[in-house]
Amino acid sequence: MTTTFEALPTGEDLDTAIARGQRAYELDRKHVFHSWSAQAQIKPMTVLAAQGSYLWDGDGNRLLDFSSQLVNTNIGHQHPKVVAAIAEQAAKLCTIAPQHVNDARSEAARLVAERTPGDLNRIFFTNGGADAVEHAVRMARLHTGRYKVLSRYRSYHGGTDTAINLTGDPRRWPNDYASSGVVHFNGPFLYRSTFHSENEQQETQRALEHLDRLIQMEGPDSFAAIILESVPGTAGIMVPPPGYLAGVREICDRYGIVFIADEVMAGFGRTGKWFAIDNFDVVPDLITFAKGVTSGYIPLGGVAINEAIYSTFADRAYPGGLTYSGHPLATACAVATITAMEDEGMVENAARIGKDVLGPGLRELAARHRSVGEVRGLGVFWAIELVADQKTREPLAPYGGSSPAMAAVLAACKSGGLLPFANFNRIHAVPPCNVTDDEVAEGLRILDTALSVADEHAV
Amino acid sequence: MTTTFEALPTGEDLDTAIARGQRAYELDRKHVFHSWSAQAQIKPMTVLAAQGSYLWDGDGNRLLDFSSQLVNTNIGHQHPKVVAAIAEQAAKLCTIAPQHVNDARSEAARLVAERTPGDLNRIFFTNGGADAVEHAVRMARLHTGRYKVLSRYRSYHGGTDTAINLTGDPRRWPNDYASSGVVHFNGPFLYRSTFHSENEQQETQRALEHLDRLIQMEGPDSFAAIILESVPGTAGIMVPPPGYLAGVREICDRYGIVFIADEVMAGFGRTGKWFAIDNFDVVPDLITFAKGVTSGYIPLGGVAINEAIYSTFADRAYPGGLTYSGHPLATACAVATITAMEDEGMVENAARIGKDVLGPGLRELAARHRSVGEVRGLGVFWAIELVADQKTREPLAPYGGSSPAMAAVLAACKSGGLLPFANFNRIHAVPPCNVTDDEVAEGLRILDTALSVADEHAV
Repeated sequence: MTTTFEALPTGEDLDTAIARGQRAYELDRKHVFHSWSAQAQIKPMTVLAAQGSYLWDGDGNRLLDFSSQLVNTNIGHQHPKVVAAIAEQAAKLCTIAPQHVNDARSEAARLVAERTPGDLNRIFFTNGGADAVEHAVRMARLHTGRYKVLSRYRSYHGGTDTAINLTGDPRRWPNDYASSGVVHFNGPFLYRSTFHSENEQQETQRALEHLDRLIQMEGPDSFAAIILESVPGTAGIMVPPPGYLAGVREICDRYGIVFIADEVMAGFGRTGKWFAIDNFDVVPDLITFAKGVTSGYIPLGGVAINEAIYSTFADRAYPGGLTYSGHPLATACAVATITAMEDEGMVENAARIGKDVLGPGLRELAARHRSVGEVRGLGVFWAIELVADQKTREPLAPYGGSSPAMAAVLAACKSGGLLPFANFNRIHAVPPCNVTDDEVAEGLRILDTALSVADEHAV
Repeated sequence: MTTTFEALPTGEDLDTAIARGQRAYELDRKHVFHSWSAQAQIKPMTVLAAQGSYLWDGDGNRLLDFSSQLVNTNIGHQHPKVVAAIAEQAAKLCTIAPQHVNDARSEAARLVAERTPGDLNRIFFTNGGADAVEHAVRMARLHTGRYKVLSRYRSYHGGTDTAINLTGDPRRWPNDYASSGVVHFNGPFLYRSTFHSENEQQETQRALEHLDRLIQMEGPDSFAAIILESVPGTAGIMVPPPGYLAGVREICDRYGIVFIADEVMAGFGRTGKWFAIDNFDVVPDLITFAKGVTSGYIPLGGVAINEAIYSTFADRAYPGGLTYSGHPLATACAVATITAMEDEGMVENAARIGKDVLGPGLRELAARHRSVGEVRGLGVFWAIELVADQKTREPLAPYGGSSPAMAAVLAACKSGGLLPFANFNRIHAVPPCNVTDDEVAEGLRILDTALSVADEHAV
């Protein structure tokens, strides 16, 4: 199924591009240290080029990018208007220090603030999601005068010290020195309920009761913040059941706890809304964002801050900052990205795709493949939970690990011409927000074949 | 002395540009949350444009940029070759995920690795300096199996949790929950010696003895790392006296402690060498870098890793990472920046400027102005320490604060057409590495006038 082209979107002939990729690979293995990896054991894929919903690997094979490069390129690859805006701002002004005023930064702040719910109208720009989370927690700690922070198991909040300690997945374990003040709790996840729930209503009620009791036992006055991905991403795209986030909001109000919605992965159109939390009509106190805000074309992250927390730092210095905060080139990229999303109706497209195309298509696959335990999601944000046994729900790879079965499924995707996002026993179908119906249909066809491989490993 | 131009390098007429700046200012005050600031009390300067060693403020005044925007733009503003390289890579490929291979990243890793001392040949790219420091400390902790880290007072290491706790300046205080495992010590600083030293040799010997004794008292087996800016930057550009860094290297070897050289500010030409530590013929185990690697045109940072620490993560996963690690557009910018510095001899120019032009010029000012306690530095990295009394060395502003006297000096700089970097009682003269002799002469003339204002506050 993989399509090989003689020429790439870069205009190179294939031999030239492949030779370029081979040199890149050699230098990579000699000099590049990779994230989350045993350096000598990886054989990374080379990317020669990318365009729209596609990329080309080191052999010139075209792959449909259902990973969005870590759920990042929400407008697809190489959007011409955003590429042009980068060149234009680069020619005008690449950088100034954060203490000065710059029009690109001001305009980006306005565009983000206009899209956040409630009165989250003050924008602190960071370099990415992890430092956005670091700063949000710092603001909450100084605003409340408290230290401890609540975060759920099955979550990811970033790679720096505070952020990785907030994280509720195995990547935290080697970084946990029991000094970060984080208390983890179980969030709602009906398919693998820790609350023995039989329906969503029960799961909501029991998850909220669990959280409230935990706070009682840990000390209601000791918590600065609760941080939650509005829809948890890498951990499994568990869309919160009705009432859960509203219940968390109530708990936060009751105990004076700051509610941080982590929208690094779920924000900027991914769920069919500008922010995922808008699906639940809840207003948090702080929102952290990154990825989609520039579609990853230039690194950028940030924190949207409500007036109450802003006021804490109106006449008292906020003790945090960074050289690249509100970087002109990065914020100009955000302006272009948000404008392109708006002008081309990408957020609405993501909602429609989820509701009418990708969601129904995945459910149809689930009905036919015994290896699929559940599909869940919204917008262009979907998880396929693979199991060895639909009855016991035994996952096709253990929590925190992989398996030969999962490796075979992923190989089948790739040889079919599809690059999904994978984690443990899950495949995530997370194409860009401007993916077309035809591209989704193509992705579903390839997934269908790959799931037949998975079925061989399921009873 | 301030020069106002009818037209800016952007090609706009002045009225258009000023109107643009006014709108940017209004939106900034409405929506932008600034680093390290009491938000309602600041009146930030607007930057309309920048070119080479100059920038233009919101009124269209041209200012000689002796700040390099937080000691960041080492190649000056808007270098045409780097601007062109950004546009070229943007058109080719803006981003891919960190697990894949890309030629821009591979090439940047090669260029950095070829410039690092010793066998620091593996490059982990981050978004900036703070997360570079976070990851360096993590690598050291996992490599040694130890937790505690040594860092000096009068230092700055970044704004995220681990980095700000390593920092030895007042910005740490509101962020210190006594949970970070950092032990601070006094480094060498002859002008304000904590060791009662009378000369550099004594300062080196006593500072090393102090460090060694502290380690004895704290437990030699408990330290994962010592982190030191090779030449401390914001804290005062205290060039280490001969033998000090070699002595630290010996102490690290004796106790199995990882030596992290923080080169975020001092690296990439600033001191007249690619890395500041090359001035001292010492090889650390890890180098953190950012800023100069792209001249700040696109956010980028990283850690250069030696073979011993790389080996720790050869067959065991490194538990850290980030979405934008080795970002193609950012690393392409690094390739262009390093190439421009190399081709145009900027590192050599920085060395020459320090030795023959800026250093002698500042010493000549120091000899004539009673407000100058000391000037010190190398390359394009100089501090002017202002005092109310040369005999008592009483600073012109207190540690961690400002003063009307310092405000007056800075106002005099700005009205004279110069933008310096300022911290507490110090002015730092930190122009780009490609600053010309004439620009330095212009800066010295403006400083001369501003120091006369300072003299009025000194006995």
